[in-house]
Amino acid sequence: MTKRVTGHDVARRAGVTQATVSRALRNLPGTSRGTRQRVLRAAAELAYIPSENARSLSNARPRRVAVVSDALTNPYYPQLVEPLRRHLGSRDLQMVLVTETTGPAGTGVSLEALADGSYDGVILTTTTRTSSRPRDLTERGIPHVLVNRVLDVPESPGCTVDNTGGVMRVADLLVRAGHRRIAVIQGPTDTSTGRERATGFRAGLRRHGVPLPRSLVRRTVFDHDAAMGAAISLLHSPDPPTAVFGGNDVIALGVLSAATTLGIRVPEDLTVIGFDDIPMAGWPLVGLTTVHCDLDALAQVAVDLLARQLRGGAVAPETRRIPVSLVERRTHGPAPTR
Amino acid sequence: MTKRVTGHDVARRAGVTQATVSRALRNLPGTSRGTRQRVLRAAAELAYIPSENARSLSNARPRRVAVVSDALTNPYYPQLVEPLRRHLGSRDLQMVLVTETTGPAGTGVSLEALADGSYDGVILTTTTRTSSRPRDLTERGIPHVLVNRVLDVPESPGCTVDNTGGVMRVADLLVRAGHRRIAVIQGPTDTSTGRERATGFRAGLRRHGVPLPRSLVRRTVFDHDAAMGAAISLLHSPDPPTAVFGGNDVIALGVLSAATTLGIRVPEDLTVIGFDDIPMAGWPLVGLTTVHCDLDALAQVAVDLLARQLRGGAVAPETRRIPVSLVERRTHGPAPTR
Repeated sequence: MTKRVTGHDVARRAGVTQATVSRALRNLPGTSRGTRQRVLRAAAELAYIPSENARSLSNARPRRVAVVSDALTNPYYPQLVEPLRRHLGSRDLQMVLVTETTGPAGTGVSLEALADGSYDGVILTTTTRTSSRPRDLTERGIPHVLVNRVLDVPESPGCTVDNTGGVMRVADLLVRAGHRRIAVIQGPTDTSTGRERATGFRAGLRRHGVPLPRSLVRRTVFDHDAAMGAAISLLHSPDPPTAVFGGNDVIALGVLSAATTLGIRVPEDLTVIGFDDIPMAGWPLVGLTTVHCDLDALAQVAVDLLARQLRGGAVAPETRRIPVSLVERRTHGPAPTR
Repeated sequence: MTKRVTGHDVARRAGVTQATVSRALRNLPGTSRGTRQRVLRAAAELAYIPSENARSLSNARPRRVAVVSDALTNPYYPQLVEPLRRHLGSRDLQMVLVTETTGPAGTGVSLEALADGSYDGVILTTTTRTSSRPRDLTERGIPHVLVNRVLDVPESPGCTVDNTGGVMRVADLLVRAGHRRIAVIQGPTDTSTGRERATGFRAGLRRHGVPLPRSLVRRTVFDHDAAMGAAISLLHSPDPPTAVFGGNDVIALGVLSAATTLGIRVPEDLTVIGFDDIPMAGWPLVGLTTVHCDLDALAQVAVDLLARQLRGGAVAPETRRIPVSLVERRTHGPAPTR
């Protein structure tokens, strides 16, 4: 085995100090152009690997946080991941994105991948209601926080939005507009998001004495194409609904695509409402009536909760709730008379 | 200084072998529930840090590749980042996403952040035509590849799509449909994507003898809201265009939003064409006619080029081109007679 080439060797060959080598290789101010070229030439001749050098020079590796997200091609997740990255960055925490696909054919992230010592903390955004993942991380002593997800049995700190308050307002709006045949295409009920919105919406309608028969309920994943398929089957039925509430915006966009495909006018013939208020919901092209969630606030609270743990503080396994608000755009209207 | 607690200490206290400690802490099969609990209790009593243990047990840290992306809230980037992550993962390369915002008020990623020894390689997706970033990385000996971007003076290997071929086909389609007042809202010309599409589209029209007067050209960033503003000013002019080509799909979606806002029918009164074919372009709700780019193929070639460098191979500073195709949906039609 040959002896490993060090910064010292480069310094000697270039006739400069080690500090100059480090500055020159990191392109920091304080070295002349000529000196820098001499150092680079010496490093090249010795086959010296600058990245190793830089690594040994830095005080410590940057602290890394794994953010477990659904595939970014699900349009909701970039909207959550981006503010998480920003708030982590403002605390000098580096985000490593770990994506998994959920649902029956999904590929989950293994505990090993999260607990191999690479990460100082973990942010979970896809966890199902009965997942053992948070408990596993607790057992390993790995600081973590749940975002947009709640466990049935509290285990870890987390934050999410006021799903129940939001769907109650959607139910109020629909009933006030005269709708009585109201359908829901809900997300997976093994997630707290899917379950809370489904349960809360049903309760919101019941408060007004409006039933939600089984024939008007569809379950799907949070995906445009799957939701479009579910909506087409709903709207093809002999007595179709006059309004469809989608468990999130991506589902509602699928309902709008179904309406376009079938030539059904929105909102004249059909009211469509979503949940989340992702940016494209607000594009005039779309104009979706939906429930606004402040994902920046959600991300900030999540990073705060994690940072407190990273400083060694104890954080109770409670869930913070971010308030939501209804945004009335142009996909809702009075119930059509038939 | 106290002596560091080791896996050996935990094994002795729990009365098991070191291999059992490692298996129990990593939750691998082969240890009984009781043994696992004994190991966890011993580890807790000794304040043993399992993550350090796991790190020392692994042969080496996973190899990490920094992917420099625009903010994920730009809908194009998740579509590129996701297949990059997938193809990196299939080669046991871990993606660390580093996002920057481009444009005049943008916050770029510093060379230091990429060259601090944290990364084995870098994938650049936002580089401008005259950026010194690739040369800086070459000087530090850091393997890297450009994706969807080309430098004016070749420096590094890269791959992108056939921008010129794509816009030529758009020009052909528009002229054949009878359009003569054709506008373009182009992306930033300090990017190869913006420049190649702008130059190629102008050449494509010229081939048919159709002029592209300065009054029908707008420059913007690749952003829905900015494009919508530019489109409204274009469509408000005394002699508005009958067709608008957007420099990418996000721009074209902004044009569609402008048309919705102004009550202009698409495609009866206005033809709109984009470039990229991001998934929402294909949603029936949108139905955008556009140029399809195979981002999975793009990502695969990029990761191949990087992996060859990581294996120590030399890769020429050439740019591979992925072929594109026109997708005719429902936002284009014959030029209206006025």
